[in-house]
Parts: sequence; structure tokens; C-alpha cells
Amino acid sequence: MLKELRARWPAQDFIYLADTARLPYGTKSLDTIAQYCAQNLNFLARYDVRAMVVACNSASTAVLARPSEGPIPVFDVIHPGARRAVASTVTGRIGVLGTRATVAGGAYVREIKRLAPTLEVVQQPCPLLVPLVEEGWTDDPVTNLIVYRYVSAIMAHKPDVLILGCTHYPALAAAVARAAGPGVALVDSAHGVIEDLGGLSLRENGPAGRLRVLATDISPRLTETARMLLGTDDFGQIEHVDLR
Amino acid sequence: MLKELRARWPAQDFIYLADTARLPYGTKSLDTIAQYCAQNLNFLARYDVRAMVVACNSASTAVLARPSEGPIPVFDVIHPGARRAVASTVTGRIGVLGTRATVAGGAYVREIKRLAPTLEVVQQPCPLLVPLVEEGWTDDPVTNLIVYRYVSAIMAHKPDVLILGCTHYPALAAAVARAAGPGVALVDSAHGVIEDLGGLSLRENGPAGRLRVLATDISPRLTETARMLLGTDDFGQIEHVDLR
Repeated sequence: MLKELRARWPAQDFIYLADTARLPYGTKSLDTIAQYCAQNLNFLARYDVRAMVVACNSASTAVLARPSEGPIPVFDVIHPGARRAVASTVTGRIGVLGTRATVAGGAYVREIKRLAPTLEVVQQPCPLLVPLVEEGWTDDPVTNLIVYRYVSAIMAHKPDVLILGCTHYPALAAAVARAAGPGVALVDSAHGVIEDLGGLSLRENGPAGRLRVLATDISPRLTETARMLLGTDDFGQIEHVDLR
Repeated sequence: MLKELRARWPAQDFIYLADTARLPYGTKSLDTIAQYCAQNLNFLARYDVRAMVVACNSASTAVLARPSEGPIPVFDVIHPGARRAVASTVTGRIGVLGTRATVAGGAYVREIKRLAPTLEVVQQPCPLLVPLVEEGWTDDPVTNLIVYRYVSAIMAHKPDVLILGCTHYPALAAAVARAAGPGVALVDSAHGVIEDLGGLSLRENGPAGRLRVLATDISPRLTETARMLLGTDDFGQIEHVDLR
């Protein structure tokens, strides 16, 4: 997600907040996730930012249930993902792969039905995919087996579009595509977020923008994981922040 | 762990606190885990308890690094596990399977070396086992493959004892034993904790003790997961508590 935004607006500064002290969100209740998100957004708002992107589907689900009322615009990943899926389907059947929290929250289903009430939406919780990606086992026979199990369960409903409904899943796009077979479009909400941010006139030209990475817990492997997930290593030292 | 303690002292009341709002601990830094533990122990101390057992290896590692100074005795799972492993080894080589936090903290290594300085200790982080157990995939070919990968890595060092250094791992004891092969003893620290609590004269006889389960986050699957991990369903409604 961050990689795509920086590629589109290379002169823009970005601040990335990783709530590593309370990760993962996808296994927790929407109430707890909503509280964590409110704390995170209030914290980021102090940095005089132009906009905030909730770059996590579970968090987006919780934020949509309790929208922020601050002056800084907040963008979620559910709306653009739903919009792209609706535009991509031919057969009218859309599948959503997500964490337990995202699936239970049902935000994709609601948003797709709002855009196109006659479409059919099926969901599949994939709780083991986040830990596998965090381990870096993105190209591994074990991961392929687990992806195959989740994807073949949802393919029984014959969707022609699968939403990668978790920011970790694009790292497994190749495995998901293999398991889904030909003729199934994968939707990564990162691309849709770029459209949503288009009206903000973020900086395209000029000296390279700065990236700051903040985290609520600094574990020994954090820098390595951040490099892998953010697709960059130009953020220097990760800064520790305390939201508790 | 709780199951073993209740079987030993059936008339004793127990309170179980699950910090589900911040789980898992094993992927986080020892500093953050130590802060969470201090909050948890302060909270439990209000319930007028006789003793507190830190029934998590990652949390025990953090608590040993920063011991509690309150009046209520605190028991960890590292000491009894290390003691049992030292008593069980014949060849003098002990293996520790644990989370990243437990392995990085090195508490088992220090405690074993303190008891028997000439013993050799090898460690293997097994970060995917907690999510697999939480999913209930304890008897699954995929889990067997992952267990085999971790266990065969540590068996290259030829230990004759393996410490199941995480409260979730006893659920995978059969898979670990198969992967380790014959002649390797598995140590579950739950049994050693019973010895440590022996001096407290907890209630063996009388009407059945009551179990209360408290949790910091109530997600939809929590009751099911608690039944599986605690090995009982006589705790009624799980009570929500807020430590944040």
C-alpha cells in the first residue's frame, strides 16, 4: 500500500504508524479494534497530516462502523476494494478473503450491496495468512497448501473476482491466483486508494519525500519485517511511540 | 496448565485472565510484554488471590527479567520447565521450542545453566505454532508439516529432551513426539508448576472450586477457543475487563 502511494507521489512525505504492540487486529473484536483505531488516528492527527489512510482491512471495518469526526480526512480500504470488485465482475459473484474480524464485520458485503444490490458476495476468513506473511513464508509449499485450502473453499461458490481483503495478502497474490485458477480477477485495494486520494493534490514533483516509520513496539525482527511489508528500506531508524 | 491445577486442587477457586486484547505476546519485545504483565499482575492482585501463575512462557521470560515486588507470590513456568528438563536429560543436550520472545529472552538457557552449567541448550523459535493451535488445527497435515520443519531443525543438534516452551504447545505434543522420534522426552512445564505450588496448601477437598474467566477482548470465537485451550466449559460467561 505505502509502496504504491509513494510511487504515485514520490515528492510527498509519509508517516507510517505500525501498532505492533497490539497486532494483529484481525483476530480481535470490532469494539477493541475501533478503540485502537481512534487512538491511532488521534495520535497521527498531531503530525499535521493532509490525510490519513487506514491501511488495514480489519481496522477499516471498525472505522467504518464508528467514523472519525476530526477535521483531517480519513480514507479506508473497503470502499475502493468494493468499487473495483464491482467494476471487475462479469458473473456477478464476488469473493472476499479476509481476517476473521473483516469477515465478521461484513463491511465489504454491505459496500458491494450498496453499489450493486443484485451481486452475490461470499466471504472466507483466512486467519493463518497474516502469520505466514509475517514469517516471510510467502513462497513456500506450506503456505501454498494453506492458501489452496482457503481459496478452494471460496471457489466452490464460483466467484469471478476475489478481493485480497487484508493488506498482507497481496504478498500471496501469486499463490492465490494459482489456487483460484484462470478467469478469476484479484482485487488489491491499494490501487483504489490511489484514486480516492487523487483529489488532494499530493506532491508528485520535487525532492524525494521523506518516510518516517513509527511503531508502538520495537521487537528484534521489526526492521526486517517492515522492509519486507513496506517494500523499501529508506526509512532509517524506526521510532518508538507509546499509545498506551 | 489450568486443567492440571484444577485436577490437583479441585476445591480451589481459580481466576483466569486472558489478555486477548493484546495477544499474542510471543512476537513482541520483552519491554512491552513486561509492561503488559505488570498491568495484568496488578489487576489480578485486586482479587485477593493466594498466588499468581504466569502461565505463558513469553510472559514468564519478561517477568523474570523484571520480578514483581508485590506481597502475592508470583510463579513462572520457566523454573519448573528447566528443572524437569535437567532431571530428564541423559546425554546433557536439551532443546527448547518457544516463541520468538521466549527464545530471544533466553530465560530457559540461563536457568538450565544455573542448575547445571555443563549442559548444552539449543533453542528453536516456532512462531507459527500459536496461530495453528488457536485455529484448532492441532491434528492436521499442514500443522504436522510445520511442526516437522521446526523439530527437525532442532533435532539436528541431537537433544534428548525437548521443552514445550509455550503454553499452546502441549496441544501439539503428539506431532512433536512423532517428528522428534523415539528416545526424546517432552517436558511440559505445567507439571512442574504443581510442585512449585505444593507449599501453599491449596484446597483439595470440599465443594468444587469456582472458575472465573476474564478477558480483555471478547471476540466472537473466544468461548470456543477458551474451551479448547482450558480443557473445560464450566466457567459460564467470560467477563470482559479493561486494562487499557
